[in-house]
Amino acid sequence: MPLRIDINADLGESYGAYRMGNDAALFPHLTSCNIACGAHGGDAEHIDNAIQEAIKYAIRIGAHPGYPDLAGFGRRQLDLSDAALQATIKYQVAALDGLCRSHGARLQYVKPHGALYHAMAEDERIAELVIKAILSINPALAIMGPANSCSEQVCTARAVPFLAEAFADRRYTATGGLVSRQKAHAVITDAEEAAAQVLDIVLRQRVRTEAGTYVPVRAQSICVHGDNEAAPLLLAEIDRQLAAHQIEKTAFL
Amino acid sequence: MPLRIDINADLGESYGAYRMGNDAALFPHLTSCNIACGAHGGDAEHIDNAIQEAIKYAIRIGAHPGYPDLAGFGRRQLDLSDAALQATIKYQVAALDGLCRSHGARLQYVKPHGALYHAMAEDERIAELVIKAILSINPALAIMGPANSCSEQVCTARAVPFLAEAFADRRYTATGGLVSRQKAHAVITDAEEAAAQVLDIVLRQRVRTEAGTYVPVRAQSICVHGDNEAAPLLLAEIDRQLAAHQIEKTAFL
Amino acid sequence: MPLRIDINADLGESYGAYRMGNDAALFPHLTSCNIACGAHGGDAEHIDNAIQEAIKYAIRIGAHPGYPDLAGFGRRQLDLSDAALQATIKYQVAALDGLCRSHGARLQYVKPHGALYHAMAEDERIAELVIKAILSINPALAIMGPANSCSEQVCTARAVPFLAEAFADRRYTATGGLVSRQKAHAVITDAEEAAAQVLDIVLRQRVRTEAGTYVPVRAQSICVHGDNEAAPLLLAEIDRQLAAHQIEKTAFL
Amino acid sequence: MPLRIDINADLGESYGAYRMGNDAALFPHLTSCNIACGAHGGDAEHIDNAIQEAIKYAIRIGAHPGYPDLAGFGRRQLDLSDAALQATIKYQVAALDGLCRSHGARLQYVKPHGALYHAMAEDERIAELVIKAILSINPALAIMGPANSCSEQVCTARAVPFLAEAFADRRYTATGGLVSRQKAHAVITDAEEAAAQVLDIVLRQRVRTEAGTYVPVRAQSICVHGDNEAAPLLLAEIDRQLAAHQIEKTAFL
Repeated sequence: MPLRIDINADLGESYGAYRMGNDAALFPHLTSCNIACGAHGGDAEHIDNAIQEAIKYAIRIGAHPGYPDLAGFGRRQLDLSDAALQATIKYQVAALDGLCRSHGARLQYVKPHGALYHAMAEDERIAELVIKAILSINPALAIMGPANSCSEQVCTARAVPFLAEAFADRRYTATGGLVSRQKAHAVITDAEEAAAQVLDIVLRQRVRTEAGTYVPVRAQSICVHGDNEAAPLLLAEIDRQLAAHQIEKTAFL
Repeated sequence: MPLRIDINADLGESYGAYRMGNDAALFPHLTSCNIACGAHGGDAEHIDNAIQEAIKYAIRIGAHPGYPDLAGFGRRQLDLSDAALQATIKYQVAALDGLCRSHGARLQYVKPHGALYHAMAEDERIAELVIKAILSINPALAIMGPANSCSEQVCTARAVPFLAEAFADRRYTATGGLVSRQKAHAVITDAEEAAAQVLDIVLRQRVRTEAGTYVPVRAQSICVHGDNEAAPLLLAEIDRQLAAHQIEKTAFL
Repeated sequence: MPLRIDINADLGESYGAYRMGNDAALFPHLTSCNIACGAHGGDAEHIDNAIQEAIKYAIRIGAHPGYPDLAGFGRRQLDLSDAALQATIKYQVAALDGLCRSHGARLQYVKPHGALYHAMAEDERIAELVIKAILSINPALAIMGPANSCSEQVCTARAVPFLAEAFADRRYTATGGLVSRQKAHAVITDAEEAAAQVLDIVLRQRVRTEAGTYVPVRAQSICVHGDNEAAPLLLAEIDRQLAAHQIEKTAFL
Repeated sequence: MPLRIDINADLGESYGAYRMGNDAALFPHLTSCNIACGAHGGDAEHIDNAIQEAIKYAIRIGAHPGYPDLAGFGRRQLDLSDAALQATIKYQVAALDGLCRSHGARLQYVKPHGALYHAMAEDERIAELVIKAILSINPALAIMGPANSCSEQVCTARAVPFLAEAFADRRYTATGGLVSRQKAHAVITDAEEAAAQVLDIVLRQRVRTEAGTYVPVRAQSICVHGDNEAAPLLLAEIDRQLAAHQIEKTAFL
């Protein structure tokens, strides 16, 4: 049976005259895309355009909801009541779900963004609240998140399809976490190094840590960050290495 | 055959700590409600609460999208490209549509807000753009707007159900338009006067103008503005007068 | 020597069509006003109007900066870097300072808002950062905050004039703190009770707690919350009681 | 007497995680900078950083206020009352003025942004309103704008110092206006062409139009747009050509 992997990136995060990432350069390399929902970033026009591009490239569409905090780009914890958290998640996912349908496409999964992604990974109560909110909008949606996280636990308990992801361009700690973005070596900008990390994840289910050791990693999808200036180069090199190793790039795992 | 009329108001327009209107006092009197969509006003939590209240009162739910302009509350014309206008309308209506479904309810119509409502009424091209955007999200939706407007023309041409509305608490000009909000007598705050205007509309399909003359008015629904401080009193008096004249209050026309 | 007290309230917090508090009803009763700075609430026009009203009533003008978080009205902790916190405080205070000068008036003090007020009261490092930022804009400004707080400590250490304030309409805990707004009895809405609390503060430097005991309170200014619906009634009763006890209402302590 | 010219660019327009322009690459080439004021773009931290960089490079600091419209980046006309327009201009300029003073620097001029810049150029009433608002904050400020505009007329009538500017990287129409940004050739991205346009402006007080003809242009300052990706290359070539022609680059004209 051939090896397969999904490649995803966050898109549609531009806001008015403010451009975030280089969506056009990323699309040709992706098999899934996480489209911003207008809360941490993105506006209706950029979101709608991203959906249309995703359809053109025939790739899987996910929603990428975050804390409603444009000034913080959803990267800082936001103190919301449970009801406010669930309402904003429902609002954001519903908007994406409807916009996809308006183009005859189908929203297939949700990957929460930034501080919300991490809060769900570490706090089962938050994961439970968010996943329930997502499913109330569309019970067919899958959830994307890190393996072995609270997000995965909640999905498993509720029989919700879960898509485990790992990162091509983030360095890992000795315990399998991500090196903080505060540190200089947090992000991998060298294309060969990123491609090697992808091969390690796909072929050997492991990743080399900042300490030089290896930790096991399980992933059905690999994320490349679009705000990494080097992203297009990384993706091109990843494509070459996947092809060289007969690994199929696909969202249909 | 008994006379019937629908009573609607704009709700869910509060934003964070900022309260707009007195939703709780209005709900018991309404048969339809136009719920803000988070662009000109409203936030996810207030919107979701308004949907739940509407379900509790078993009234018809409409979406109330507007220009994405919180600072201007959607009351000023906003220069948007056609694509940006359609994208924001789709985004807003999709959010409401999904939130309703998450509660097992159904979004039934769309009444655009403020400057957008007026732009559609007067400009066929804008009406066409907006109505196409709305229907791309949900082709079963009706449109609410003023009778004899471009909004109605576009609906008629496209066989889209149209709900003509008139106002209980706005004074009319001699040509059947609304007296500008800039003028002191634009808004009717006297309950008996508002109820008399409603009776005129329902029983005699006419309305008394600022000049003391009468102009014909056609309406299936009558709007009371929630940001009119006197709204609860007006609605109570309207209820009394409708009952006294055996006029049924209902959204199912 | 006659007894004297300053009465302050937060004003200018309306935003576009969203009204917060009833500024017009409060102004006649105040000797100081804390004017929003456009971050947690307020917009340029409401702020500029509030300054002009304050000048008309010849009362002392303070700036009321908060976290830049309109959706949360500055009432929730916001994770800002030290540089970002100082920059927003400087920006807000500079705007108010300049607007006052444009009308020939003088900004005299700063009272931080909401979560920032509490963060400064409890965390000396935050108090230090904020107070340094304020003084970098105008070294003649005084700081208003709770007695015995970190805000006061920093002011004392730096020889910055400090204005200790207490609350007419908030209930106190047995340890001298404020009863949380989550609790039903947090806010005093009865005018006689509020006036009695003011007299206790001014005449006996003490306040009755929720437990019925008394704790000492030191205050040069007493705050009435403008978003308390009963505020105008409270202020009228406070005026009556202050007059009855020959207590002078003045900002010039 | 040696020839002299000022080179300016718009800076500090980044917002949170959203970067606008490449400020760091522009600063070494400028003699004046127009710093965003937090309304059409910019946030307190980016603004404060830009001021500190300007001080480091010892260049002239101007305020760059715009319509309060982050979503439209101040590039579209916004329907504001006169009072609201003046209040936001005062607010923005006061913030910049105070932030400069907090670093021991001095705000020296104001160059309005985007749609506001154009509205003032064409409408004397708007120019009058805005310039009065600016001077109410600091009567020592100069105004920067296009030569022969309403902005200049109002300044001349009021004896306000006016800095006429022309553009290095925008193409001109046969009547001396700017080619609309809607057109493909509106922006000059070729460094040699931009430098030639600068030389034409400085040495011959004329500019080559899209039609190949020449129109007279008067300028004390030349603007290079920071959101032009080629800006650093353009500025380097302009530097070379100015040096080759013994033209001094300076803000002190």
